[in-house]
Formats: sequence, structure tokens, C-alpha cells
Amino acid sequence: MGAGVFTTNIVKAAPVKWDMNLLKEDNEIQAVILNSGVANACTGELGDINNEKMAKAIADALSLPISSVLTASTGVIGKQLPIKIIEGGSKKLVDELSDTKESGLLAAEAIMTTDTISKECAVTFLLGDKKVTVGGMSKGSGMIHPNMATMLGVVTTDILISKEMLQEVVSSDVHDTFNMISVDRDTSTNDSLMVMANGLAANDMITEKNEAYYLFYEAFHYVTETLAKMMAGDGEGASKLLEVSVINATTKDQAITLSKSIITSNLVKTAVFGNDANCGRILCAMGYAGVEFDPDKVDIFIESSFGKLQLVENGMATDYSEELATKILSDKEVTAIADMKLGMASAKAWGCDLTYDYIKINADYRS
Amino acid sequence: MGAGVFTTNIVKAAPVKWDMNLLKEDNEIQAVILNSGVANACTGELGDINNEKMAKAIADALSLPISSVLTASTGVIGKQLPIKIIEGGSKKLVDELSDTKESGLLAAEAIMTTDTISKECAVTFLLGDKKVTVGGMSKGSGMIHPNMATMLGVVTTDILISKEMLQEVVSSDVHDTFNMISVDRDTSTNDSLMVMANGLAANDMITEKNEAYYLFYEAFHYVTETLAKMMAGDGEGASKLLEVSVINATTKDQAITLSKSIITSNLVKTAVFGNDANCGRILCAMGYAGVEFDPDKVDIFIESSFGKLQLVENGMATDYSEELATKILSDKEVTAIADMKLGMASAKAWGCDLTYDYIKINADYRS
Repeated sequence: MGAGVFTTNIVKAAPVKWDMNLLKEDNEIQAVILNSGVANACTGELGDINNEKMAKAIADALSLPISSVLTASTGVIGKQLPIKIIEGGSKKLVDELSDTKESGLLAAEAIMTTDTISKECAVTFLLGDKKVTVGGMSKGSGMIHPNMATMLGVVTTDILISKEMLQEVVSSDVHDTFNMISVDRDTSTNDSLMVMANGLAANDMITEKNEAYYLFYEAFHYVTETLAKMMAGDGEGASKLLEVSVINATTKDQAITLSKSIITSNLVKTAVFGNDANCGRILCAMGYAGVEFDPDKVDIFIESSFGKLQLVENGMATDYSEELATKILSDKEVTAIADMKLGMASAKAWGCDLTYDYIKINADYRS
Repeated sequence: MGAGVFTTNIVKAAPVKWDMNLLKEDNEIQAVILNSGVANACTGELGDINNEKMAKAIADALSLPISSVLTASTGVIGKQLPIKIIEGGSKKLVDELSDTKESGLLAAEAIMTTDTISKECAVTFLLGDKKVTVGGMSKGSGMIHPNMATMLGVVTTDILISKEMLQEVVSSDVHDTFNMISVDRDTSTNDSLMVMANGLAANDMITEKNEAYYLFYEAFHYVTETLAKMMAGDGEGASKLLEVSVINATTKDQAITLSKSIITSNLVKTAVFGNDANCGRILCAMGYAGVEFDPDKVDIFIESSFGKLQLVENGMATDYSEELATKILSDKEVTAIADMKLGMASAKAWGCDLTYDYIKINADYRS
């Protein structure tokens, strides 16, 4: 069983178009092939042909129908896939398939580009007397190779679940995880999260939103949130993970919009890099987010393992200790909290600071 | 006669609230006082009181009613104005008023913060046998002091024009000039463009959109576009001015949205810094702009005084010379052109590259 969510960019890479088509129909998804180095985006008809050849090569090597193979690419836009190399290597790739931990790591490392760490996470839980496993890997660090912002993610599980329910989990969860991270606001042409469930756990098949559904949802969410935070913290050039938590907002949408506006502000990101508790930049980013709120009610806090500090009370800067603020911000993981004092809704977003290394990575030539 | 446009940020500085109120009524605007160093934003009731004191001090020194004085501030958010110093200096400020070129330059320099050049422009034109002058100054370079993104602009003219027609010129023109520049996407709490017309040119008063109106519009537009481009090219840390021209779009709104999406992309801005003709990043930024278009029709060109080069034809990368592309991008002023081949509408946006110096300026401590 397969499910997925893909980029909202109008310019879609060949593999994204392929996957969306496959998943629209009732195809039994059984494999996914990913390459890095070439994004296969803006490559015209030849790009589509090459993508299909890549799927075909893997399908043949696995003795599967081509309609069961998802594809994903990341790398330079506008270049064609080196399809002969991919076709030549697909048999070898399949021969080396294994279910060891080492093989999982090799896959997670193979899809890295400017990522500095590989990103994997797996959990198990019991559904009645059946053990269920959910495991995932992802890559994404801002612009890749250094050409584009792409996240690719693959989650596999042995749970037995209907296609509709699996897609429901993925489509719903992504709003709280992968859609809430931002390294540079640039939605790529290739973003893909692909999920496969093979049913080998032999639990009672999940076909509705029952207790088993929510247990699986929780496990799935743990894996995806962990991967999402790993990607945000490993954003290109990042020196720290920044979490923004907007609480007591009127609606969930308002909380999402405000938290994303803060996490994507270059002003906020450079201040965090400089360990500068610049509360004005946070309020400013909230103010231009495009949602209504009362700025004279807002409280703002910063928090890390070094402590918690209120920077703003009712829209006005407090007389806080700059020394403590700098100390708190110097941690590897930092949280900014905005209390709207309007309602009950909340949202969290993750990002990173904007550093010299980000410029270095992205101003370099492609070659 | 006074007119103005102000920030759309929900969090508005005290001077912005003051000016918007004054301009709502039929007040005869005759002076504007600007300070840099403190933004007087997020300063609560005391901020409003101090702002009024600043206006009062200048009004008294000029023997004007307080309702004729506009105010503007730029600098650190959350700090109160040093109002005693401002009150103490207002008499001296008024004593030094003069209409020499040197005084204009002093004013333009006084409002600079991280700006590296002062920004002034003036033109004259004939309306019948009357000579009309339009002059302006502005400041803005990204985050100021280094705390926020603020543009302040003042345009004065001796044309005789009704308040309604003057506001119409300002409100309409700003969509093609100051609203089309971006250094870092951060809409500040203080952005203000203030315009004063004293009628001394003694032309027939403009009260409708006649020929004289459009002549004035053209002169006004020349001044504001010049100032806007100077600000974009002097963006914090910028090494070059980037112009994005979207042509043959379906609607003006579509062209505006696409050009702004390109000009604000960190991916595009770092590529331009690196003289890297990364057409994929331009197409990518268009794709996530949130408007519909056909990616398979788009042509993309780059142009500077070193030449013009087509990078993309019908959505696919051309086999262009990387050497020539790098040469073109190495100029101080560079234009990217996206031809949508859909309709007749077009828009231009201005910005700058994203450099190490931008990080340096904005990661520093406020003190």
C-alpha cells in the first residue's frame, strides 16, 4: 500500500508527476528508487522518458510491474538524468537489498547532499498482540548540491491498513511536521514524502479511524516529527535548531501562519545566529504575517536548556537581562514562544539560524 | 497639502499611528520631523506621548499647530525616544533650516543608518509657463541599526494640487516603486512615505486627472523610482542591484506576484551574489509564487551592460555559455527577465544579492 504528499510548486519535477499519477490510481506500490545529483526538473519530455526508464530498470530488476515503483530525484535543476548509469546499476542495487540496520544507514547516507548528518528514525508498538514497526529516512538541508531546496522522505511500515486510511494519516500529519519546517522559504520542485505499508504485521486491517488508527498515527507522527526537526536543525549552514511555538491563538490557521512567519524571517534568523534577543524582530514578523491579532496582548518568551526568559509583555519589551538572554540563545536548540492570549489554538514550527555558511554554500558555483 | 502611505504591518510604530490620524483629517501638513536610532515601536502609551512631544517641540519652534507636523522614526524596536534631547534640540534644528543643496544633503545623511549612500533625487518640469519642482529623499537598507527593515521617504513639491489628487498620485505610484523593492522581505513597523505640496509653483490647481496631473505623476514617479532603486541597490551587504522584469503576463497582479517571488528568494539572491546563472532557482521561485501559469511556456533571460543571454526556453534550460552568464552577472546592475508568453501585463521589482555582509550586519548585537 502506498501513499504520499508532494510539492505544491507549479513547476514539478518528472518524478513528482510520475508518483502523483501512480498514487491517483489503485496501484500496489512496492518500491521506491531515489537518486541525488540531478533533480530531473525543467527537463521537458526527455525528463519524463528518463524517469520512466529509471522506474522500469528497478521494476525489471525486482520483477515487479513498473506501476509499483515510485521515483524521487534531487539535485541540479535543468540537467538530464545520466540514465545509462542508472540503468546499468539497477541490478546491482537490487542484489544488495537487505533488511539490516547497516543497509538502512547506507540508504539514508546515499540520499544526502549538503546534509551533514543522515536522518533516520524508527519506532515499534503493539497493536493487540501484533508488533508494528514504523521507520523512516529523509534528506533535506536547504538548497541541495547547491541548487535547490528539496526534501525527500520515505517511511515504511509493516502495518496492515487501507490505502485511504494510510493517505489520511500522511496528508493530515504533514501539516504538523514536514510542512512546519523551513530553512529558506523556497518550496522546491521535487519535495516528496512517500509512504509504503506492506501489511506483514498481520494486525486487523485498519479501515476506519478507530483506536488502532490513532495508535499508528501517533507512531507515524513521532517518526515524521523527529525527521522534520533533524532536517530543520541540519539546515544549510545552521548552527542551531530554532523552534517557534505560538500558543493561545484564535485558530490553528492563525497559529500556523504566525509561527511560519517568525521561523522564516531573515531578521529573526540572523538575530538567533548572533545570540541576540531581538524581540522587535519577532513582533515585526508576526505583524506582517497577514493575520489579525492584538499586538498589545502578545507575550514573548525564549527558552533553552539554559533557562526561560520573558522578553515582551502585552506588546512591550520587558526590562530583561541581556546577559541571560544571550546565554539562553547560545544553546544548540532554542525555542521562542509567542502567547497570543486570544484563544486555545497552537502550532509549532522549526527552522534554523541564517549564517555565513549558508551564503557560502549557496553562492558557490554549481560545478 | 500632505499625503502619505504607511506600513501594512499590524504592529505600527507610534509615529505611523500619529501620521495616519493626521492625514485622515483635513490638516494642513507643513513639516515633518524624523529621527534615527530609536524606532518608537512596541513602546506602549509612553511611546505615543513621546511622539506627540516630538511633534509639539517642532510645531512650537516653527510656530505651527501640532496638527501640521508629521513624524517618522527608525531604529531599535522596544526602546523609548530620548525625548529630552529631541525637545532640547528642536529650536536649533529649526534655526538651521535652509533651502540650499547642502542642507538637503545634510537631511538625507541625517536619516541614514546602515545605508552606505545618501539617497536624493529632484526634477523640474514646466506646467504651462510655471516651473514645478519635485524633490525627494529616502533611507532604507534592510534592517536598520541593525534592528529592523525600515524605509522612510519624504517627497516635497511646490505644485498646486488638491489633497485628493496628491494622495491619488502617491497611493497609485507606490505600487510600482517602493512596494516593488525588497531587501529581506521584512515589512517594518515604521515604513513611511510622506509627501508635502506647498503650491508655490502657482500653477492652475490640479483637481482632476487632466494632462497636468499626468505630467506631475510622471515627474513624481521618476523621483520615487530613482529613490526605490537606490535603496534596493544599497540593501544591507548588497554587492549589486538586481532588477526582475516579468513580461507578457496575464494580469498585472500576476506579474507583480511573480517578480516579487523571484526578487525575494534567498536562493536567487545567493546565486546572484555568486555570479551563478542558476535558472532553476528562478523557475522554482515562480512556481511557488501562488499564481497559475504554464511553466512549459516560460523564457528566461539575464542582461547587464555586458550582454544579454537566454537561459530558459519554453521551460527548459538552454545550452547557454556559463562563461558569458557569469560575466553578465558580475556587473553592478543585473536584470532577469521572465517572458510568460501569456498576455500583455508586466511588472518590475528591485532587490539585491544576499551576501556575507548581510549576515555580519544583522547578526551583530544591538549595542
